[in-house]
Amino acid sequence: MQLTGQSLIAGRPTAAGKKSFAAVNPATKEALAPAFVVATAEEVDQAVKAAADAAPVLQAASPEKRAQLLETIAAEIELVGPTLLERANAESGLPLARLSGERDRTCSQLRLFASVVREGSWIDARIDPALPDRKPLPRPDLRRMLAPLGPVAVFGASNFPLAFSVAGGDTASAFAAGCPVIAKAHEAHPCTSELVGSAIVRALAACDLPIGLFSLLQGPGAEVGVPLVKHPLLAAVGFTGSHTAGRALCDLAALRPNPIPVFAEMSSVNPVFLLPGAVRERGSVIAQGLLGSVTLGVGQFCTKPGLIFVLRDNATKGLMDAVAAGVPACAPGTMLTPGIRERFLQVQERLRSLPGIRVAAAREPGSAAKNEAAVTVAATTAADFLRTPEMATEAFGPFTLFVEASSMNELLACAHAIEGQLTATLHGNDSDWESAGPLLDALERKAGRLLVNGFPTGVEVSHAMHHGGPSPATSDPRFTSVGTAAILRWARPVCYQNFPAALLPAALRDDNPLQIWRRINGALTREPLASCP
Amino acid sequence: MQLTGQSLIAGRPTAAGKKSFAAVNPATKEALAPAFVVATAEEVDQAVKAAADAAPVLQAASPEKRAQLLETIAAEIELVGPTLLERANAESGLPLARLSGERDRTCSQLRLFASVVREGSWIDARIDPALPDRKPLPRPDLRRMLAPLGPVAVFGASNFPLAFSVAGGDTASAFAAGCPVIAKAHEAHPCTSELVGSAIVRALAACDLPIGLFSLLQGPGAEVGVPLVKHPLLAAVGFTGSHTAGRALCDLAALRPNPIPVFAEMSSVNPVFLLPGAVRERGSVIAQGLLGSVTLGVGQFCTKPGLIFVLRDNATKGLMDAVAAGVPACAPGTMLTPGIRERFLQVQERLRSLPGIRVAAAREPGSAAKNEAAVTVAATTAADFLRTPEMATEAFGPFTLFVEASSMNELLACAHAIEGQLTATLHGNDSDWESAGPLLDALERKAGRLLVNGFPTGVEVSHAMHHGGPSPATSDPRFTSVGTAAILRWARPVCYQNFPAALLPAALRDDNPLQIWRRINGALTREPLASCP
Repeated sequence: MQLTGQSLIAGRPTAAGKKSFAAVNPATKEALAPAFVVATAEEVDQAVKAAADAAPVLQAASPEKRAQLLETIAAEIELVGPTLLERANAESGLPLARLSGERDRTCSQLRLFASVVREGSWIDARIDPALPDRKPLPRPDLRRMLAPLGPVAVFGASNFPLAFSVAGGDTASAFAAGCPVIAKAHEAHPCTSELVGSAIVRALAACDLPIGLFSLLQGPGAEVGVPLVKHPLLAAVGFTGSHTAGRALCDLAALRPNPIPVFAEMSSVNPVFLLPGAVRERGSVIAQGLLGSVTLGVGQFCTKPGLIFVLRDNATKGLMDAVAAGVPACAPGTMLTPGIRERFLQVQERLRSLPGIRVAAAREPGSAAKNEAAVTVAATTAADFLRTPEMATEAFGPFTLFVEASSMNELLACAHAIEGQLTATLHGNDSDWESAGPLLDALERKAGRLLVNGFPTGVEVSHAMHHGGPSPATSDPRFTSVGTAAILRWARPVCYQNFPAALLPAALRDDNPLQIWRRINGALTREPLASCP
Repeated sequence: MQLTGQSLIAGRPTAAGKKSFAAVNPATKEALAPAFVVATAEEVDQAVKAAADAAPVLQAASPEKRAQLLETIAAEIELVGPTLLERANAESGLPLARLSGERDRTCSQLRLFASVVREGSWIDARIDPALPDRKPLPRPDLRRMLAPLGPVAVFGASNFPLAFSVAGGDTASAFAAGCPVIAKAHEAHPCTSELVGSAIVRALAACDLPIGLFSLLQGPGAEVGVPLVKHPLLAAVGFTGSHTAGRALCDLAALRPNPIPVFAEMSSVNPVFLLPGAVRERGSVIAQGLLGSVTLGVGQFCTKPGLIFVLRDNATKGLMDAVAAGVPACAPGTMLTPGIRERFLQVQERLRSLPGIRVAAAREPGSAAKNEAAVTVAATTAADFLRTPEMATEAFGPFTLFVEASSMNELLACAHAIEGQLTATLHGNDSDWESAGPLLDALERKAGRLLVNGFPTGVEVSHAMHHGGPSPATSDPRFTSVGTAAILRWARPVCYQNFPAALLPAALRDDNPLQIWRRINGALTREPLASCP
């Protein structure tokens, strides 16, 4: 498959710009061919206009047609074959086995959204039939369902070149909702992005859908992302990345003449609370699991546990010693980009230098030439933690900080002190749960997902998953970026009052031709209207 | 019932401030006793802190308990008796009959939300049971439901002193979702607000719920609203009012260190498109209905039709003549406040002076002493409209503008040119619908509610209502401020992974003790988990 090094605007490779950049193999620091031309402001404009022009076709497409598009994209990605994994490996340093799993996840995610679209209840169809004889006034016939928002910008993530990039969860859920997508490739993996983008272009053609429904823009955020988010015809944004970049996009979107929603998944330190009963019962198993979760993917997961809260006692000391003892066996790993490694080492250094923080165990950092980093486990006291908010800074890499409390009250104070999180985890046994109520209540207000006796890395793509949390973890805790509910980010209700049958969307017709669940007079049913009381 | 002229902070009247203001009877310009003390920044802080402290109690309360609170508030409002209507009449100039209807709507709205809370499916409970044997990795047990966001600020609306103020739709839906409420009384009706606020305080006491769940703040937006929206513990805002004030609150909330959602319902001109078949068939009936909708409540509805698009022909001329002929019979009415009247006359004057606009019919403006205004019907051509975007400015009062197009294409161009709206209306007959597809598609992208052969004023409170629309009509077209779906504004999902049964919320337990609809492995069911495939 020939790479063009160009953006794909409505299916066509274009390169009107003069600037270019190349991906770098993080393990060798070699520039990878081809160079990519940075998209121009005019190309951004063309992409969004093409999306807006094509939007009505996808909105009007049947659920079956949308499902076929999603499934065809999955099939086309699989057809790219080993080239895709090799390119992603060269661009990200991630191992082939991990990338193969990520490709599977990407494709099953697309197929899962196809099943959601076919099942159809996500549109929250509601019908309140007319009550012509009601006093003092008759009630009109009211029918409501979710409709697509319009063109969606998707910003690829550095740490998931497949599952959260060009055809990742944001794109899959946006197409499922009926929205065109303009993907902004992450600068670290333009080749992988082009391969996946071309697969989407082929899928649109195979499904006989307008090519304007998808564009892929190459280039940095400041030059490509900013004009994209400011474009008057853009309807929404999906972003996964740093807090600084996410917040900048949110502010940009909020200050538009017509503000649009930005779903930014930004930063999280994923606190873990180890309660004393659990530590006594299975401290060494927890120690092993924690170290595995901290070092998975060289610590480059948004759900990496970065703060571990414990009660100071002998069993806890044994657990912390066991974690420290495991550190030497954790091999260094290549990080995603030189920039990510550099920022990680900076943040880690700042954290290590804070008064009250001591290093419990650290592996030598590995080879700078291979862009490696290795694990560091640090420790502090709850008293120091409570007086040093900076200790809760996210270090995006294999670093974690134990926080030792001297009482359950101090542990609870720590839970109240932390900011919004994607996840919060408790390890406990039956004796611990008796007094854990206040801690659970506190964490429920801080995090989107609460785990018991598990580890937060490894985010399931399913119906009940919620991957989102209060600020600053995400820009909007009401929505998830993982799992089938992610489709709800890209839709808004439209209500039809006294519409003639022939003008109603199929989902709202009396006879329920799509056989979907609907809410009639407030009650859920799959029956046609005539059969409802 | 003795009015205190004070704010109610967590159930207690307080007045630490030095400034005061009084409501004015718009029909007489007399100041109404008592004077009200403006809440201080410290009182705002106390109110939000009390709400945050009390929030866990309402979150943990059973659906039945929340439903009882809503029903008790309704009963307490009814118990206030005629005093409430008399005060609201004195403060707003709205007729007693209208206010009596509005009180009924307010109370049935509270009771409707009680039924939604009891039915329980609004929390979107989802369960994906564990798959311990799945390859390559087991699936954990995942359960997800909506939880309350936290303290909600509700800004009372000038034009609905009951149904969109202290115990209006925002408050009812927030309590239903489990959120404490801090109401900011509209300065135009502080007495009405205190009477309703006291009813809520009594209802909380009767239900044995913490008084911190509700506070009522008196004073202007700049002094009370701004510190309220900036308060770090506030979780969300509901607002109905002008575009300027709404946008200022949105910007304030978006630029907080932890941004929060603002649901602002701001401005809408509610375009009406009269298609030629309908005009020929029943022009005079439409003329009568239009004039009634434009002048209802002295034009002070967010859904007042402010732009009427027509095709220039003889039948249309007859309809416009019929509207003009009806104008002299429309008596002037007292507007809500002197400020609203003044702004209406200014905007109307500016619109009337725009090149291309002519006055088709106008009633003498009525008595300034009685704060009256009367209807004006103006007209322009589509060509002038398309080159003068200012013609689409909302005039909050009894003003409407006919826009005459010379072709269906020009009509369609007008539909594409308008901004986001709460509603868009079409009048047509069977012959019209054959070619109305492009117009319908265009309006669907512009408005939250589409009406056929009706008038947009009179917003039903029901399950299928959507009262919201693209910018600038509202700040977030994904949510409604009227109808049962309004509850979704105040909640966010929380996911529980591998939770022991005893720690799960009732809604997510295996046996489904609340007997609510849940999504198990993606399929809706009311069965216990053990009965599901």
